[in-house]
Amino acid sequence: MANASVNNEKDNLTSVLYGVRDLRLEQRPIPKPGHNEVLLKIQRVGICGSDVHYLVHGAIGHYIVKEPMVIGHEASGIVVKLGEGVKSLKVGDRVAIEPGVLCRMCQFCKLGSYNLCPDMKFCATPPVDGNLTRYYVHAADFCYKLPDHISLEEGALLEPLSVGVHACKRGGVKVGSTVLILGAGPIGLVTLVTAKAMGATKIYITDLTEFRLNVAKEMGAYKAIKVNRGDSDEQAIENVRSEMDNEFPDVTI
Amino acid sequence: MANASVNNEKDNLTSVLYGVRDLRLEQRPIPKPGHNEVLLKIQRVGICGSDVHYLVHGAIGHYIVKEPMVIGHEASGIVVKLGEGVKSLKVGDRVAIEPGVLCRMCQFCKLGSYNLCPDMKFCATPPVDGNLTRYYVHAADFCYKLPDHISLEEGALLEPLSVGVHACKRGGVKVGSTVLILGAGPIGLVTLVTAKAMGATKIYITDLTEFRLNVAKEMGAYKAIKVNRGDSDEQAIENVRSEMDNEFPDVTI
Amino acid sequence: MANASVNNEKDNLTSVLYGVRDLRLEQRPIPKPGHNEVLLKIQRVGICGSDVHYLVHGAIGHYIVKEPMVIGHEASGIVVKLGEGVKSLKVGDRVAIEPGVLCRMCQFCKLGSYNLCPDMKFCATPPVDGNLTRYYVHAADFCYKLPDHISLEEGALLEPLSVGVHACKRGGVKVGSTVLILGAGPIGLVTLVTAKAMGATKIYITDLTEFRLNVAKEMGAYKAIKVNRGDSDEQAIENVRSEMDNEFPDVTI
Amino acid sequence: MANASVNNEKDNLTSVLYGVRDLRLEQRPIPKPGHNEVLLKIQRVGICGSDVHYLVHGAIGHYIVKEPMVIGHEASGIVVKLGEGVKSLKVGDRVAIEPGVLCRMCQFCKLGSYNLCPDMKFCATPPVDGNLTRYYVHAADFCYKLPDHISLEEGALLEPLSVGVHACKRGGVKVGSTVLILGAGPIGLVTLVTAKAMGATKIYITDLTEFRLNVAKEMGAYKAIKVNRGDSDEQAIENVRSEMDNEFPDVTI
Repeated sequence: MANASVNNEKDNLTSVLYGVRDLRLEQRPIPKPGHNEVLLKIQRVGICGSDVHYLVHGAIGHYIVKEPMVIGHEASGIVVKLGEGVKSLKVGDRVAIEPGVLCRMCQFCKLGSYNLCPDMKFCATPPVDGNLTRYYVHAADFCYKLPDHISLEEGALLEPLSVGVHACKRGGVKVGSTVLILGAGPIGLVTLVTAKAMGATKIYITDLTEFRLNVAKEMGAYKAIKVNRGDSDEQAIENVRSEMDNEFPDVTI
Repeated sequence: MANASVNNEKDNLTSVLYGVRDLRLEQRPIPKPGHNEVLLKIQRVGICGSDVHYLVHGAIGHYIVKEPMVIGHEASGIVVKLGEGVKSLKVGDRVAIEPGVLCRMCQFCKLGSYNLCPDMKFCATPPVDGNLTRYYVHAADFCYKLPDHISLEEGALLEPLSVGVHACKRGGVKVGSTVLILGAGPIGLVTLVTAKAMGATKIYITDLTEFRLNVAKEMGAYKAIKVNRGDSDEQAIENVRSEMDNEFPDVTI
Repeated sequence: MANASVNNEKDNLTSVLYGVRDLRLEQRPIPKPGHNEVLLKIQRVGICGSDVHYLVHGAIGHYIVKEPMVIGHEASGIVVKLGEGVKSLKVGDRVAIEPGVLCRMCQFCKLGSYNLCPDMKFCATPPVDGNLTRYYVHAADFCYKLPDHISLEEGALLEPLSVGVHACKRGGVKVGSTVLILGAGPIGLVTLVTAKAMGATKIYITDLTEFRLNVAKEMGAYKAIKVNRGDSDEQAIENVRSEMDNEFPDVTI
Repeated sequence: MANASVNNEKDNLTSVLYGVRDLRLEQRPIPKPGHNEVLLKIQRVGICGSDVHYLVHGAIGHYIVKEPMVIGHEASGIVVKLGEGVKSLKVGDRVAIEPGVLCRMCQFCKLGSYNLCPDMKFCATPPVDGNLTRYYVHAADFCYKLPDHISLEEGALLEPLSVGVHACKRGGVKVGSTVLILGAGPIGLVTLVTAKAMGATKIYITDLTEFRLNVAKEMGAYKAIKVNRGDSDEQAIENVRSEMDNEFPDVTI
């Protein structure tokens, strides 16, 4: 029945970036899931700094928007149709989307560093379309079923959260660590909550903005350190060190 | 002044194991701290299973009580006198004792596996005296100053806690881990709280005794699994697996 | 042209195990390579202990030969036809075969422990057919192009060699290691040459058989230690330790 | 008898750096070995770039020669007298010297990163005297007995060699690695031989100087790449990459 309703559905309003500051809402055909893929009805999509960057500048480094591209990669959705061979999900499942799908064949994919796969297809990184759209097809094994107590908003935030998890893992945060996080923007904050969950004892965090530092304190920072825009590098370092009582952090992120 | 009072102190009542079930309280001279050592007034001492084992059996494996030996190695104390060269502590500091002092020269000591040092002097492991006594001398760098919010009872428990920390580190417990702990005795319980602090999501724990399982549940076990004394190995395994809904643990300790 | 010759080829003589001690040579149709697969003309196939075990016992543990199964998994071949999408190989390439093809989707595959993939399809492990046959289809990314100086015989030996490589990696063999290898059969010997290539200084190896120990010495063992069949465990340990002049190995495999 | 001869020895000619370009040879008293120390008759001493730097500039970064300092830290010697407690060496042993002696008590020393010990006493790093002298006292456990087949010259080279070993370990060089070493000076060359001993397959090495590149080739470099002094960064990178046939190294040192 869920499948039936999709079949009748026509509305697939999609946000497509045509060029610098040229974002259009347009109807696109609803795609069909292939082997090991699912069709998702997208529920929530976060707007990442990278989406804004493509909108304003048309490119990030080597990644240049040359063809119209759907933006968005921090998303949650509901499974509405299963492609052939999908066993891990069923229609109706609420899922978070991991936006980079791998080649599954290079040595990075095989040896556990798949984030380095040179052939990764990553949502909303040119020329790959993103998921700020009504209906979206994705590899089933990169859709993670949400437990009942995780909302769809939270599900959409799992992608940026995973950046914090990766940072804390690489940095080796552990029980009892003293951690210094440079920057209290969204990624700084997800790193903060991850470091806490990993057992860090003292988490220092810096930012230029009072508002962000206050949020960081509410979220459990041991000390939120104001960095002043006009300071020289030496002054900024001296400032942070003295705010940390000259304690060295075990991990700096 | 603290030093002065020690100098006048005469009472150094000490519990000395003379043989199987032959534990005597006797006065011993108050020792003097050497280079890099401190004299401690002992405050709390936990009784470990090993202490009981030496009392009842006179030996653990190759470690045999041949000479009278002071028992006790899970202790906290207060620094009452500093040996020459000690800079890390001062008189009056409340400390937890790490009971094994190293040779500091073998390759295990140098390469970060000092727990394997073949020449370690470990409190209450024959022929090394322990610290169930009033006054005790120990290497200053194996006395850890307690923060104000840690009591002396908690300080004495840091030694068994560290067993749980080591186990969880070796096992690779991390954020999101599912952990299975076999046994809910004191070491099982410190492993449980450590695994939680490291971010484990589900911690299963087993025991033969209902009472221990209840304590484990109060301390945060996801599920406390009763093992039945009469079960065959196969039955016990089947029992645990079915209680875990056939989920495989990431780490078993 | 190579493709053409395959198309006319009819001979695909294949060794099929029907049951205990029931191995038959029979013609099978030449298979067609699918997406990301290649058709190989098999050149050399090693006979592993597992092949013999299936022949003699019909099973290894839970793996039971229930249907006729092609044996063989230590093989080299020449690419004779490319499936769709194959870019890493071309017709005529000489390749060694890694016999286990992954699901590419489970967490073991994604996190770099693909040897633990529960859905791995492994040549000649029931019910998956092996490659002791004339023509064989395999995933292109599990066929490794041989450099010119590696013969097809050597190519077929890469699979058992990789067991030695994995063992030495897990054991942490490195420059200057003293290594003790228990058993000088084929896997013991590939472990020996790997440990040497990794820079081990002294490699001790044990066996029951004088002949194997002599081969091990020729291949660079520091000392080949005879174990006597009648010895008790204690005697055997004492024997090995005294032959090693009571030196402890850094790694035992 | 060896001890006796030392007791009569008067000559302890020592090279002492008094200031910039002010190096003097002077007699100093022969020191006495303390607890766990040995007196060495120094045999060979390498002159490190750091020795030259102190001679010409009087300082390296924060390390400033303020008092007269004996230079030299790459040395081998013969044990001529044992301090109290020394069991690992005997008079007459030929040894290589590890020039940094640890505090043995900080967390870096205890956790296996003793190279980071902030209280390390390192030969010929102000204000610690070095070993370009006739008689020198050192901690016994930092004197490594040389096997018979290692000459005293080679022994003196173990200190710079260990820099290469540390670099290759940190870089994760292993069997089959492709390694790029930037610079073919003495440290580049010891890194080259270490990488080979660890099983690296292809070792690329760069330098400005033809002579050094030739030595590197003789010592087993796969390819020695000339870098041109006038090149811009982009040109230099392009040059190295094209010389490497656009292969990416697994490790760059």
